[in-house]
Amino acid sequence: MEQQRYYGRDLICTQDWERDELEEILRLARKMKEHRYSPKYTELLLHRTFLMFFYNPSVRTRQSFEAAATELGGHAQFLEPGSMRLKSSNTAGETIEDAAKVMSRYAVGIGIRILEDRIAKYGDGDEFLREYASWANIPVLNMADDKFHPFQGLADVMGMRENISEDMRGKTLLQYWGHGALARSWCSVQESLLINSRMGMNIVLAYPDGYDLDPDVIALTKKNCQNNGGSFSISHDPLECYRGADVVYSRNWMSPRAYDNGFDKQKEIKQALTHPEWICDHEKMRHTNNAYFIHPMPVDRKHEVTDEVASGERSLIYDIAENRLHIQKAVMALTMSTEW
Amino acid sequence: MEQQRYYGRDLICTQDWERDELEEILRLARKMKEHRYSPKYTELLLHRTFLMFFYNPSVRTRQSFEAAATELGGHAQFLEPGSMRLKSSNTAGETIEDAAKVMSRYAVGIGIRILEDRIAKYGDGDEFLREYASWANIPVLNMADDKFHPFQGLADVMGMRENISEDMRGKTLLQYWGHGALARSWCSVQESLLINSRMGMNIVLAYPDGYDLDPDVIALTKKNCQNNGGSFSISHDPLECYRGADVVYSRNWMSPRAYDNGFDKQKEIKQALTHPEWICDHEKMRHTNNAYFIHPMPVDRKHEVTDEVASGERSLIYDIAENRLHIQKAVMALTMSTEW
Amino acid sequence: MEQQRYYGRDLICTQDWERDELEEILRLARKMKEHRYSPKYTELLLHRTFLMFFYNPSVRTRQSFEAAATELGGHAQFLEPGSMRLKSSNTAGETIEDAAKVMSRYAVGIGIRILEDRIAKYGDGDEFLREYASWANIPVLNMADDKFHPFQGLADVMGMRENISEDMRGKTLLQYWGHGALARSWCSVQESLLINSRMGMNIVLAYPDGYDLDPDVIALTKKNCQNNGGSFSISHDPLECYRGADVVYSRNWMSPRAYDNGFDKQKEIKQALTHPEWICDHEKMRHTNNAYFIHPMPVDRKHEVTDEVASGERSLIYDIAENRLHIQKAVMALTMSTEW
Repeated sequence: MEQQRYYGRDLICTQDWERDELEEILRLARKMKEHRYSPKYTELLLHRTFLMFFYNPSVRTRQSFEAAATELGGHAQFLEPGSMRLKSSNTAGETIEDAAKVMSRYAVGIGIRILEDRIAKYGDGDEFLREYASWANIPVLNMADDKFHPFQGLADVMGMRENISEDMRGKTLLQYWGHGALARSWCSVQESLLINSRMGMNIVLAYPDGYDLDPDVIALTKKNCQNNGGSFSISHDPLECYRGADVVYSRNWMSPRAYDNGFDKQKEIKQALTHPEWICDHEKMRHTNNAYFIHPMPVDRKHEVTDEVASGERSLIYDIAENRLHIQKAVMALTMSTEW
Repeated sequence: MEQQRYYGRDLICTQDWERDELEEILRLARKMKEHRYSPKYTELLLHRTFLMFFYNPSVRTRQSFEAAATELGGHAQFLEPGSMRLKSSNTAGETIEDAAKVMSRYAVGIGIRILEDRIAKYGDGDEFLREYASWANIPVLNMADDKFHPFQGLADVMGMRENISEDMRGKTLLQYWGHGALARSWCSVQESLLINSRMGMNIVLAYPDGYDLDPDVIALTKKNCQNNGGSFSISHDPLECYRGADVVYSRNWMSPRAYDNGFDKQKEIKQALTHPEWICDHEKMRHTNNAYFIHPMPVDRKHEVTDEVASGERSLIYDIAENRLHIQKAVMALTMSTEW
Repeated sequence: MEQQRYYGRDLICTQDWERDELEEILRLARKMKEHRYSPKYTELLLHRTFLMFFYNPSVRTRQSFEAAATELGGHAQFLEPGSMRLKSSNTAGETIEDAAKVMSRYAVGIGIRILEDRIAKYGDGDEFLREYASWANIPVLNMADDKFHPFQGLADVMGMRENISEDMRGKTLLQYWGHGALARSWCSVQESLLINSRMGMNIVLAYPDGYDLDPDVIALTKKNCQNNGGSFSISHDPLECYRGADVVYSRNWMSPRAYDNGFDKQKEIKQALTHPEWICDHEKMRHTNNAYFIHPMPVDRKHEVTDEVASGERSLIYDIAENRLHIQKAVMALTMSTEW
């Protein structure tokens, strides 16, 4: 392994990394899962600090990143900027430059999570991470922003390879809008489109009118499909889209109007609940190619998917959740460790 | 030691464990106290994660559990569900099943603290823990719920054995209601009744009219006394009850009416303060068998007990507080470690 | 090194320690910076707990103390008393005696940060720390109180020695009031006056009328200057004071009237902003002896100092921020480790 190729790198979106680099992450994550507490891995970040900034709360992301640091011998600090004195657009405080430069003296890496309700418009969260990364001398990892969620995307791929096939080329992923009560971010869904299209899957993107995603991401996804031998299509039919699917990923996302007059979560939820036919259930799954079910969790059961499917024997949700840990350990080790 | 007997076990109430199993905990805790940072113990949870959920804030419990994980080589994550997205009875969110199953992939154990002001009615907190435990594949430890507080009970026993006698059979414990300004949970007191009655102590339970505890716990305590050679009595006289006591445990608890129209702490406090004669003081202690004073802390000085007694030479409060750490280390090691 | 001289000591203000003891801290910090993750240092607090109480939030202090514990092999618990049950002057709760005595059983040291908005009058924060220290059997470290900030003062000295001269005797420090939007504590500035006067520097203290500091600290600073061969003067001219300075430390502080009717931060800020001429800029720096710029951060750019100076090549702000970590590791190792 050419470790110097990875040392010091940021990971903000999988699209920023080469295909073979993503393969290296997946390979190492698999080994780390197999030998979880092996001394080969438990000293890679020994006594080192990883700083986690949660502008938005989180369950799995916090637990899995903090556990990842622990399992690599290091320590993750849990920081919530609400109780800190960082500068915002309209309050006095510290610049990102000053904050990032000092953190680079204390730590070996920074993770940041910032979603739609903490920003003024779509794209600001991702830009905030990229500004942080431009000033920091240590890797900045995206723990989910308003556009991308690279560790979720990699965990999805790892879970499908383990359970379905080592080679997902030619298989069809249905990326499906589930109605729901949580008005979710675009990040997991867009990351899935980008990474799975690069892995050679056929992509069917299905959602009701009015729920278009970022056109730049869609354009990139199409290009990825072309470059990697997959097909891409969009459907607005909640049932027809299931035909031929090998994997169904049913997940709510908010509409592009959500930011129009400031992020109004309740309005989004109300609107989403007018589409009860958009649910992944056993009846629809019967039209697939005996598909597996995936989801980044937390699952909004009875809206995005029925209990029967989510807890069914072809559901991969817990394996994928576990893979978050291993993928994160692999990336932290590759980008932050000097102990190889 | 038959380690496989303990691996994977939950500890929600000491009554759920056999007597000889409790003895094993106490024996190991004693050794861990004697050899606190010995390599025999500092690698038992090396690089492992323990998840602590504090639905209610805590001083000693948080400090001692987090230190316990550190001293065993692991790391405890401090999680406050107020800043997390778990499902509650009237909000969308994740099911306990999903949360518990994913945590079982990241961690080697889960601690939960949930008290009366976070639940609708008495018993709900304990039931919540038991539901968590039913889904989790890793041990669930009760860091205090509305009914029980097993680690406090074990620390009490350990402290009495160290300072009074290795064999507490036949000695008398006065479990005394102190008036106070904090409207305390029943958990410590009920755990004390259950565990000390199993240890063969005579139990005198004393409180003013209107402060009955859980009748199921009282019935179990009586049965424990019968089975282990101790006596059990209830007194409503704030002074007479002291006669013959070897240990006085003066602690406030709220009335069974506290839940009637939603938990109203201020009303409880106001009511409790109408009983100023219910205080453990030097004068009353003179009627005992030169008794020791115990308390789970924090002590509400001048209400539950006078400074003279709480800081007196027969007060065991700091030793018992310290023992929380050692007991918790012992249980975590027994139930979570694969490194024996 | 006579380690027993340091073991168990508190550090609340550098003035409480002997000169040669401060030199020992600085010497060890330098070695720890040079050999940051050397096994010589990473086991000094192995598996030990350091408790951090943040009555006020913090960026650098929290990150650097938590990283310091990690790099010494231990673990720092992040505690915010807002979510805890400690006694305050007008609420029931635990006494400092009880809290400190129990913590002494769990941990090897306690850090406390408490600033002006959490206390009733100037001096109360420092007194609170000293009361804690009187009850605790383990070291109490001042992570910034209303009067002093010893780790900042030591980091300043270390940064100047590294970048300017190993011997700062005879060089001139301009301690300058910068106008600003943050109404800052006196702690960093007063600690700087006390420690740099002991190091033999000439001190010029400059501020507009109405911004006098603690007269006791000023008297001590004068005496330190006399005892160590330096001069001391006060200026109220925002420009003239720069003449001859070797180091400029421009930092806002609040007025002594800030506590008059309860701490009113907004009123202080409004008042400070009426002095826009009090800013450290390139033009003023031209009158110095080619001075270096120092600041404890966070920098209030465009108020305390211009970007040109703060980010200029003679700015030492990032080095000094990094030194906080090394100084803290050195003091924690000296006062808390039994592993030498």
